[in-house]
Amino acid sequence: MDRSERILMAHGAGGYIMHKLIKEHILSILPRDSFEVGLHALDDSAVVNGVIFKSDSYTVKPLFFPGGDIGRLAVSGTVNDISVMGGEPIALSLALILEEGFPIDDLDRIIHSIADTCREADVYVVTGDTKVVEKGSLDGCIVNCSGIGRRSRYLDYNFDIVRRFRRDFKARWILDSNVKPGDKIIVSGTIGDHGVAILSCREGYGFESSVRSDVRPLNKMIEKALSVGGIVAMKDPTRGGLANLLNEWSEKSGVGILVREEDIPVRDGVRAACEMLGIDPLEIGNEGKVVIAVVAEMAEEILEALREAEGGEDAAIIGEATDEFEGVAMETLIGGRRIIPPPLGDPVPRIC
Amino acid sequence: MDRSERILMAHGAGGYIMHKLIKEHILSILPRDSFEVGLHALDDSAVVNGVIFKSDSYTVKPLFFPGGDIGRLAVSGTVNDISVMGGEPIALSLALILEEGFPIDDLDRIIHSIADTCREADVYVVTGDTKVVEKGSLDGCIVNCSGIGRRSRYLDYNFDIVRRFRRDFKARWILDSNVKPGDKIIVSGTIGDHGVAILSCREGYGFESSVRSDVRPLNKMIEKALSVGGIVAMKDPTRGGLANLLNEWSEKSGVGILVREEDIPVRDGVRAACEMLGIDPLEIGNEGKVVIAVVAEMAEEILEALREAEGGEDAAIIGEATDEFEGVAMETLIGGRRIIPPPLGDPVPRIC
Repeated sequence: MDRSERILMAHGAGGYIMHKLIKEHILSILPRDSFEVGLHALDDSAVVNGVIFKSDSYTVKPLFFPGGDIGRLAVSGTVNDISVMGGEPIALSLALILEEGFPIDDLDRIIHSIADTCREADVYVVTGDTKVVEKGSLDGCIVNCSGIGRRSRYLDYNFDIVRRFRRDFKARWILDSNVKPGDKIIVSGTIGDHGVAILSCREGYGFESSVRSDVRPLNKMIEKALSVGGIVAMKDPTRGGLANLLNEWSEKSGVGILVREEDIPVRDGVRAACEMLGIDPLEIGNEGKVVIAVVAEMAEEILEALREAEGGEDAAIIGEATDEFEGVAMETLIGGRRIIPPPLGDPVPRIC
Repeated sequence: MDRSERILMAHGAGGYIMHKLIKEHILSILPRDSFEVGLHALDDSAVVNGVIFKSDSYTVKPLFFPGGDIGRLAVSGTVNDISVMGGEPIALSLALILEEGFPIDDLDRIIHSIADTCREADVYVVTGDTKVVEKGSLDGCIVNCSGIGRRSRYLDYNFDIVRRFRRDFKARWILDSNVKPGDKIIVSGTIGDHGVAILSCREGYGFESSVRSDVRPLNKMIEKALSVGGIVAMKDPTRGGLANLLNEWSEKSGVGILVREEDIPVRDGVRAACEMLGIDPLEIGNEGKVVIAVVAEMAEEILEALREAEGGEDAAIIGEATDEFEGVAMETLIGGRRIIPPPLGDPVPRIC
């Protein structure tokens, strides 16, 4: 029997098990940097000498799914991670790893999708890399998309508005650790769409769904929200979904977070699929949604701005930060209150 | 019969076939940027608003090889690509893709190697990503390492020295397109070591070798050379080796390049392995060597600086750029002259 520890699918699923691996086997070994926002912050992007820097690999399966593909996903995912720090994405890299035998027609579809999404987000691919591995060593195609960005022109204004209501606010970036009791929590739309869309077209699940992925670049929506002002934290609920996101904020900011089930927007098709499969829509990954923590006084204005933006029509205030308890809790539809623990991992593997 | 075009191993092998794929299926589709050094330059890194930006994925097989491993390779490769633009690497990203079942002990070895190489190069990993794919979908581990850097503090001085001898020199970065007739070509040491080391430990080749990979970060050696001054072009001869590098310079700079076989340093073990396998050491990838084009008047001083640096003991002037012919040619040991064509690809697959 092989007694040594081995990597499990859950080590890449965005929840507690992944964070434990990263802390114990990566953070503890790498030299510690002293940049503005460095590795140890484990935030969405790093900030190095004023440059926002982010890298993500995309292993989504299948490569083409209802509402998107790996190319649109790669550009959107990296653009969104830069944007939620208060950054304006400028340039991306594109590193392709292809399996020998991969159809060049499929490559063309992916590159066209990357081009279209770059135009939509107003960013450029400026550098790249192409590797090929032998047939059987990879599921067709893996994409890494890294990116750099600069400070949003609205970020200082946004923080001016924050300080109007919270005089002691000092952060220079939108960070997971900025949430304070009283802040309102807003989600920009329905949750669970991406993960359920991926599930719906995987072999063997045998259910059909009209649910499409929500994958999209959010930088323009986020810029609009920052121009309103009052935002303290912002994050896209990808692997591990809303449950993971709220627990990260709760832990890093040292606050409790209370959300109301009736206010969390979930499409009927997503709810039905989740009930059938016994999975929690709060733990499913999204790729075109942002969750915002905002000083209470500005919550309605931010909500309005999101609802006016494309893809933000279903935005909703879903709860608030509190000092009455630790962790994350939800008031359920039937009036009870249940703890939302950090998910061990996303229930749907390889959504991104 | 499936008549559609498919990806071949050669599409990732760094030579003519890869460059054709990139030009026809990537460059022609993506929106064209207008940055200082953008995608269409196809140089080692991009330069965006003064920030040097680079991304590379590493699929080397095996993960551990004589003289190095995928972790040391990833840090060195990205550091070197930033350095050869005239950049000082600052921060790296680390995106891991792991196969389910991968031993965590092996992950630890790789991360320790990354940490050691970061210390050696004086750079930090500041952001990252971890993905896991099902057993059988990947050969253990793939690493993407992207990086950002700033303009080297010696770059302006270096160009001042260039302009002392070439008054009309205008480039602001060390580019493949900067070579002019008369420039001397210097290699920082023996070639072919990395590719032959990888070959020597692959299953099925059945030959043993004492050759070790040369993989190492070159930023300190390069900084030293820039502080001497006079460098116009600089590149690391990775996939496709010296033959690919010289052909890229020849094409992008519109010059001929003549090298002398007797001056190109090749270890006996590398030469023996190449003869046995019928491959050309000029086409084999290196991971710890840099090739420099320098104004002739400064060639001896640059050579001396390289020889004083760790890993540069075998540096040699191997030839010069010329306007007497197009393309790349080599004076052979027996006194003839042969054309060095752009290699179709590296003869050793998956060296990086």
